[in-house]
Amino acid sequence: MSRFAEPQAAAFQALNSSVGFDQRLWPQDLRGSRAHAAMLGARGIISEEERDALLGGLASIEAELDAGEFAFLPDDEDVHMAVERRLTALVGPVGGKLHTARSRNDQVATDVALFSKETALQLRAQVTELMQTLVALAEQHLDVPLPGYTHLQRAQPIYLSHHLLAYVWMLERDRQRLTFAAQQADRLPLGAGALAGVNFDTDRQMVAGELGFAGVVPNSVDAVSNRDFVLDLLHAAAVCATHLSRLGSELVIWSSQEFGFVVLADRWTSGSSIMPQKKNPDAAELLRGKAPRVVAHGAALHGVLHALPLTYNKDMQEDKEHLFDAVDTLALCLAAAQGMLDGAAFNTERMAAAASDDLIAATDLADLLVKRGVPFRECHGIVAGLVRAAVESGRGLGELSDAELAAQSPHLDPSVRAVFERSSWLESKVSEGGTSLPRVREQLELVRALLA
Amino acid sequence: MSRFAEPQAAAFQALNSSVGFDQRLWPQDLRGSRAHAAMLGARGIISEEERDALLGGLASIEAELDAGEFAFLPDDEDVHMAVERRLTALVGPVGGKLHTARSRNDQVATDVALFSKETALQLRAQVTELMQTLVALAEQHLDVPLPGYTHLQRAQPIYLSHHLLAYVWMLERDRQRLTFAAQQADRLPLGAGALAGVNFDTDRQMVAGELGFAGVVPNSVDAVSNRDFVLDLLHAAAVCATHLSRLGSELVIWSSQEFGFVVLADRWTSGSSIMPQKKNPDAAELLRGKAPRVVAHGAALHGVLHALPLTYNKDMQEDKEHLFDAVDTLALCLAAAQGMLDGAAFNTERMAAAASDDLIAATDLADLLVKRGVPFRECHGIVAGLVRAAVESGRGLGELSDAELAAQSPHLDPSVRAVFERSSWLESKVSEGGTSLPRVREQLELVRALLA
Amino acid sequence: MSRFAEPQAAAFQALNSSVGFDQRLWPQDLRGSRAHAAMLGARGIISEEERDALLGGLASIEAELDAGEFAFLPDDEDVHMAVERRLTALVGPVGGKLHTARSRNDQVATDVALFSKETALQLRAQVTELMQTLVALAEQHLDVPLPGYTHLQRAQPIYLSHHLLAYVWMLERDRQRLTFAAQQADRLPLGAGALAGVNFDTDRQMVAGELGFAGVVPNSVDAVSNRDFVLDLLHAAAVCATHLSRLGSELVIWSSQEFGFVVLADRWTSGSSIMPQKKNPDAAELLRGKAPRVVAHGAALHGVLHALPLTYNKDMQEDKEHLFDAVDTLALCLAAAQGMLDGAAFNTERMAAAASDDLIAATDLADLLVKRGVPFRECHGIVAGLVRAAVESGRGLGELSDAELAAQSPHLDPSVRAVFERSSWLESKVSEGGTSLPRVREQLELVRALLA
Amino acid sequence: MSRFAEPQAAAFQALNSSVGFDQRLWPQDLRGSRAHAAMLGARGIISEEERDALLGGLASIEAELDAGEFAFLPDDEDVHMAVERRLTALVGPVGGKLHTARSRNDQVATDVALFSKETALQLRAQVTELMQTLVALAEQHLDVPLPGYTHLQRAQPIYLSHHLLAYVWMLERDRQRLTFAAQQADRLPLGAGALAGVNFDTDRQMVAGELGFAGVVPNSVDAVSNRDFVLDLLHAAAVCATHLSRLGSELVIWSSQEFGFVVLADRWTSGSSIMPQKKNPDAAELLRGKAPRVVAHGAALHGVLHALPLTYNKDMQEDKEHLFDAVDTLALCLAAAQGMLDGAAFNTERMAAAASDDLIAATDLADLLVKRGVPFRECHGIVAGLVRAAVESGRGLGELSDAELAAQSPHLDPSVRAVFERSSWLESKVSEGGTSLPRVREQLELVRALLA
Repeated sequence: MSRFAEPQAAAFQALNSSVGFDQRLWPQDLRGSRAHAAMLGARGIISEEERDALLGGLASIEAELDAGEFAFLPDDEDVHMAVERRLTALVGPVGGKLHTARSRNDQVATDVALFSKETALQLRAQVTELMQTLVALAEQHLDVPLPGYTHLQRAQPIYLSHHLLAYVWMLERDRQRLTFAAQQADRLPLGAGALAGVNFDTDRQMVAGELGFAGVVPNSVDAVSNRDFVLDLLHAAAVCATHLSRLGSELVIWSSQEFGFVVLADRWTSGSSIMPQKKNPDAAELLRGKAPRVVAHGAALHGVLHALPLTYNKDMQEDKEHLFDAVDTLALCLAAAQGMLDGAAFNTERMAAAASDDLIAATDLADLLVKRGVPFRECHGIVAGLVRAAVESGRGLGELSDAELAAQSPHLDPSVRAVFERSSWLESKVSEGGTSLPRVREQLELVRALLA
Repeated sequence: MSRFAEPQAAAFQALNSSVGFDQRLWPQDLRGSRAHAAMLGARGIISEEERDALLGGLASIEAELDAGEFAFLPDDEDVHMAVERRLTALVGPVGGKLHTARSRNDQVATDVALFSKETALQLRAQVTELMQTLVALAEQHLDVPLPGYTHLQRAQPIYLSHHLLAYVWMLERDRQRLTFAAQQADRLPLGAGALAGVNFDTDRQMVAGELGFAGVVPNSVDAVSNRDFVLDLLHAAAVCATHLSRLGSELVIWSSQEFGFVVLADRWTSGSSIMPQKKNPDAAELLRGKAPRVVAHGAALHGVLHALPLTYNKDMQEDKEHLFDAVDTLALCLAAAQGMLDGAAFNTERMAAAASDDLIAATDLADLLVKRGVPFRECHGIVAGLVRAAVESGRGLGELSDAELAAQSPHLDPSVRAVFERSSWLESKVSEGGTSLPRVREQLELVRALLA
Repeated sequence: MSRFAEPQAAAFQALNSSVGFDQRLWPQDLRGSRAHAAMLGARGIISEEERDALLGGLASIEAELDAGEFAFLPDDEDVHMAVERRLTALVGPVGGKLHTARSRNDQVATDVALFSKETALQLRAQVTELMQTLVALAEQHLDVPLPGYTHLQRAQPIYLSHHLLAYVWMLERDRQRLTFAAQQADRLPLGAGALAGVNFDTDRQMVAGELGFAGVVPNSVDAVSNRDFVLDLLHAAAVCATHLSRLGSELVIWSSQEFGFVVLADRWTSGSSIMPQKKNPDAAELLRGKAPRVVAHGAALHGVLHALPLTYNKDMQEDKEHLFDAVDTLALCLAAAQGMLDGAAFNTERMAAAASDDLIAATDLADLLVKRGVPFRECHGIVAGLVRAAVESGRGLGELSDAELAAQSPHLDPSVRAVFERSSWLESKVSEGGTSLPRVREQLELVRALLA
Repeated sequence: MSRFAEPQAAAFQALNSSVGFDQRLWPQDLRGSRAHAAMLGARGIISEEERDALLGGLASIEAELDAGEFAFLPDDEDVHMAVERRLTALVGPVGGKLHTARSRNDQVATDVALFSKETALQLRAQVTELMQTLVALAEQHLDVPLPGYTHLQRAQPIYLSHHLLAYVWMLERDRQRLTFAAQQADRLPLGAGALAGVNFDTDRQMVAGELGFAGVVPNSVDAVSNRDFVLDLLHAAAVCATHLSRLGSELVIWSSQEFGFVVLADRWTSGSSIMPQKKNPDAAELLRGKAPRVVAHGAALHGVLHALPLTYNKDMQEDKEHLFDAVDTLALCLAAAQGMLDGAAFNTERMAAAASDDLIAATDLADLLVKRGVPFRECHGIVAGLVRAAVESGRGLGELSDAELAAQSPHLDPSVRAVFERSSWLESKVSEGGTSLPRVREQLELVRALLA
């Protein structure tokens, strides 16, 4: 019997049904149902025989799902109803006892929390692998100079290892963010019922323990209204995707003919349907192009929750597709970043040549004057004049004559030419966190400790 | 032969391949290829026999696709390569001549433009149907009063017809927006080649004519770089979805027990897994919950195109999933809005009772004093004092005594009580576009003319 | 001297200058400069006299800024240059020594990190105050029943205290998020120089200690490229703003004439320019309307950082306005939420009346049958039939006759009528986290401990 | 008198007041009030003397505002109340008659519509100027070759004029979008009153005529609920900003030392506080960095309107800041784009050198074989093999020996070497819209006609 006098309209089902995408949650749904049935039995809410019948039926369903033999039907509104339908078919009317003392509202929140926590930790593991790849590359390219850029203008030379380690620290923060997201998903919603708690003296701590949650959500209204943990995971995914978009952008720029700093492996590039010479960094471009998608999923879920009265509203069904696509996209991107870097060949000669542009020495020249007692701002002006003289005459700084140096400032005597020795530029960056080799080696120690 | 020494990595293919979603473009892709082949033949770039062989092969492929018998293979990078692969299998090496004088860059832009234009017009037709449903409802409920709300506070009574027609005007603007989007997609990109034009004296006007485009994109670089028409369609979809979210929100509020203004048909509602009494307006909630998703797709595509150097970059492959999901979502929502409204039963008694709250007469009372020569701002103050007296004593305005009226202002003599006659409130709104019946009938004439 | 041969174009300055908004960072900028000067002196990079001159000048500038007497000039590109200009005016050429061993790239990152950390902690304190307000309200309305809603349909009765505490838990998570954001901003960027570290043996730990940072950023490239901590703060602000939008939405709905659950204080509402009777919940509406703004700032900053090559790029100047407006908006909203709730009068009679709708007992009735051994799913069907009979005849469940009960199921003997006693509905929700009073009291203990 | 028993809380005013930003609408507000007063007089709703008094007062206020002498007061909630307050101070109680037959709801909608329409047309004029600048540049660099890039890889050479004209077509679409937005704002809301129309027989057509609107909004509920025209303007602004971000990105890349295609004027660049050699393309970077901000304003306003019940809700006050900042930002960016391009010096030698990379001839070589009857796909493979041989041996295609050519395919006899003549590559792109000079000249004719 139903309180409804007519079946649902087909157009309504097309909009309303979630089984097309939430069937993905079946592992979480079954785990949750098993823990719930065990608890109902333990508390005497159902008998031990009933519990065993339910657990047996759930085990059969799991086997069917594992084997790809479970048939989701058009009338299954969602994964929960599909499982319950099959359960009742397998074990008879006792299947109807599984839903005692719970509601789909707390059930789906539990499924999504389990999924979010597990996925956050899986992504964290992928991030760790990418960090390891970067560390290995840094170790291989410890002392390869390239220009550091600001505003995409050559600024100061750095070691490639130092540049690559910058990404390691970005990813380390991504790990912290993913850990935070996993923690936010680590409270059991189940037991909240529809919204008010249930009419049975359940044992939520037992269920939490079986499912590996650190505790229970302490308020039943909040338990079914809350999707913050999804927002947190989407945020973590978005920041990581934005990081990867920066990496992708650099790989695209570096693999242009004009930069020529990196050659991607053939297996990580593709050709053109019309231009036989092309070798395109598609994966690097997609690292860029996928980030806005992940960010947009987070913004969309904020939009879904915006102004939504408590407690459960159907709008919240929208959480899942945003979540699934975001984490799948990030997982693909992390794998691509790692694969691309693994196969990348850095053209260290091109890099070193670019890094030896002696305009880059300008800051060092200014700093030399500082050490001779000239205020920094004044040094900056002196050297800026020198740069202008060099640029306007199409020469490097080192090509200016002694007279030209002296014309800018009496401080610029011939002894300053020592600063044009390239090897000094990088090693002079002795400050903590700087690019000099001892400092990079310190960083590597820190990073290895993090990853140990 | 290929310029690549190794096959693509599986993780690269997983990220890079688009055939999983762009196969949906096969009708557009085949139409484009047929027009291209015909043109190559007409210009003598290929022979008539070759052209006929290509057209024959394409017809066979179309039959296979129509019948659901075409097998997309894992190695098919995209729909274009899948079709070309099958074509060559069917007609032999001449299949390789189809790609003469074109590139995937202009081919995919053409497919997406065709799809965008067609979809914009289909959505426009759906919007028109929803307008017709609303007009029919307005005609059925021409003189049913309900409170108009500002700030969700009862403000002034209006007719339900007038309220429903407000949505018709919103949708009329959606039609204009969809028309604009269709026009923006109405220029042929094909013929631009990879980016620079092609080495053959092609006839782009002929291809445009066969495909129903209003003209050709006049710059080959722009032709392959441009996705503005997708942004325009996503914008049109987003505004329409936001309109529907407002409708959904009103249906949710109106079907609450507290408002009780509308009862949705059983076929457009769903029950609760735990609470047998529940009848939930899920479809109306999803009209709300889907709008941020459509908006986010537009924001994401802006993100994809952000700072992208000309011309084609792989990032642009991201256009399709954002587009497809947005238009599919809107199509579902339009169908749901129409179905829900078709089956909605308005509780005109509840509406009328709410509209007869005599605090609503306050503006009319003030306006009456205006007509007696009191400046509006002063009238507002007088009536506000009256309202305060009524509210503080828990009575309606009409329940205040003559003495209480006079205590607020000498202008409030007993003759003002006429304004508490409810029937006067609505019909006094005589201004153009107002809620009085003659004005609503004028509107209906305008709307019928639009839809004729 | 400058390397530039012409002054900046006015239109360039209009776009490029940030002093109009970054002058707000002067307290952070001065603190950073003082710590830097002290360190330069301690390391002998400048003399003690020079250090003292710089510190004296900075103290004078702080006094001017505190007094509102500091004149920012049109040519001051940013707050850093304004301070340095004034410093040199005050102390002479030695002012130019302050910029030794630093760059605006690490300087601005430091200013923004200091601001972010401080602001995160201030917002956290505001959130705590709002939690306290809610707890006090919960204590005052411990046993006031109202309907809990799902889908904005009456579902099960709960206590107002329980509902209010749901917001407390949401806000508790906001505190965790703000704490995380503060921690992410808790590493010193200063000392990274332009990007590569500096040519001086600086003491970054000393500077970090003086400024209250927990440590230093370990990679100079990352130090000047990173704005993750701003993204984290914007995320924390966005989730909190979304929470407040839900509160605002409920206050708007509850203060409608139809619900009538709450009357906002006059000092927290506004009137209409035309309708004298209106009392509008503007502040509650703005809690809704401001959330998308905060969310959008986060999405925008992701957009800014999207695909940005390392290290500093001018695009990053955009971080500040997004950050400032987001935190200012949230601070206003938190204050408004607290003020509105402080002055809200709950209409407990209206709430209780709505909560006594006996359709709400349907779940309890089903659960009673469960306790008599009927599988839950079967019970659901029995009671659904009963609900349909009641709704179709316009009666409550309790008004059905014994015969009508028995007609649905033999399990429905007259003894089940006990479940229609309203007081039982709430107290039966005995599960952990449920709405029964002992469970609410448990929650209050937990919350008080959090806030202690 | 007011219905409120206590003044507004300071924290409420801080959140609620809009006068801080909506005062910018005073020109529109005064124009609207003048037209309204004139109509009230013409219809006899007020006397001619009253009308003249109001018009006199409004003229005085306009003079004060023009002179910067109008004092907005802390208690002025918005620009409308500020004007009315001052009007009454100037002309006495008759000032209170101005608000007859209107409400702030229709008043503010009118102000914003006027502002939107005017601003859309102003931005359109700025876009036209930028188009003219680009056309002039194209004419100056008609036959300068540079590589066209796909995936930021050199693909096929094009003329700089052709590349610049691609931007002209993008901007032409921006003009169409701005025109559409102006049309959407071209209906008069005024006369809708609070929401239902007004109690007076007003003449909305007269007001529309005076204010330059093309017509009136035909439904009073829609008139005060609608902000679609703001969404349309934000969309137009967002697409244009995204276009400018692509231009900015190209200018950044082109001004890198590695590309060296363009040198920006000193007046459009800035230096570094620490690196004396730096000349940074800040304005180009900000073209990138500002686009996400404009896009986010549109997404935010969708969020504001999301699920908002009709009619006016306070949330809609949020329309203004999003609108103002978006159009101001775009105006700055358009001016910057124009200024930067005006002062840009293209390094045509670097461009031409890059364009003469003979791998770029690969497509032409394949097309030559096509013309000899080989299917394109087969040609592609032959030339790809050639490319591989060249790349692996570090040579250009033209440097391969006759034997090496023949080893790939018998079709590659020595006569194919003609295709390595660079001048042929560009002029062979003869198709409509291609880069050959006759085709570019055709484009220039089209563009000049558009701008005439």
